[in-house]
Amino acid sequence: MCEFYQEALAEAKAAYAGHEVPVGAVVVWQGQIIGRGQNSMERRQDPSAHAEVLAIQEAAKNRGSWRLTGCTLYVTLEPCLMCAALIRKSRIGKVVIGAIEPHEGALGSALTVNDLPPRSQHVETTWLYDPASEALLKQFFKELRASHDHDL
Amino acid sequence: MCEFYQEALAEAKAAYAGHEVPVGAVVVWQGQIIGRGQNSMERRQDPSAHAEVLAIQEAAKNRGSWRLTGCTLYVTLEPCLMCAALIRKSRIGKVVIGAIEPHEGALGSALTVNDLPPRSQHVETTWLYDPASEALLKQFFKELRASHDHDL
Repeated sequence: MCEFYQEALAEAKAAYAGHEVPVGAVVVWQGQIIGRGQNSMERRQDPSAHAEVLAIQEAAKNRGSWRLTGCTLYVTLEPCLMCAALIRKSRIGKVVIGAIEPHEGALGSALTVNDLPPRSQHVETTWLYDPASEALLKQFFKELRASHDHDL
Repeated sequence: MCEFYQEALAEAKAAYAGHEVPVGAVVVWQGQIIGRGQNSMERRQDPSAHAEVLAIQEAAKNRGSWRLTGCTLYVTLEPCLMCAALIRKSRIGKVVIGAIEPHEGALGSALTVNDLPPRSQHVETTWLYDPASEALLKQFFKELRASHDHDL
């Protein structure tokens, strides 16, 4: 796995430590990380606080432009529809994905944002099928179920 | 037009004054506005800074929960795919829309988010076909074209 993906995975591990669905993302431009994000929905109580959104917001701030042309997003889990639409809107052309998301993944699994209007931008995907990201997600949901069982 | 929609339109007018595509939104819960937003993409240089996203973020902060069950969003233009997906994710069940967006509108025009997975939440729409919102958008794009022609 490349070093940039490892940084996204580090963000996912930090989300896990914060009792969030463990997803992490980084935005890379010209060989540098210009944005980082970890899923923070529960801690921030913000429905938009997905890893990808936070990484893109930071990247746009650092680059001084909402147009992130030439950037690559590394993310540990396939983006949902909201995030995939934002990726496209921000002109990020390439996404490197750790694990597939069969129920909501919007870059090829449950659906493909490239098939939906507006079709003026296209998002190219690279799949890593990363066992570390999959294991982290499984562990999170296993513990969540156990905690719910305990509450009953 | 109801008073809540008028507040969304006031946000759109403020966006217009700030040289943004004029779109405004408010989130209403139990008869009170708990979130306001105006399109701020250019001023903030943030690709996620649509009126709906900002209104939802503020509403979640004020309510202390990312789950905005029972809320209604009033917006002057049909939401794009990113915003429609966020509306669904935030559990907002009702959206009152000023003008249609034929190219990117994701609540019935270019596409319908309700037709896409995950289908666990459904967004109900009410259409106002508001001439004031349409006129504001037309005026903005007319001026934008004139300014581009002037630059050539």
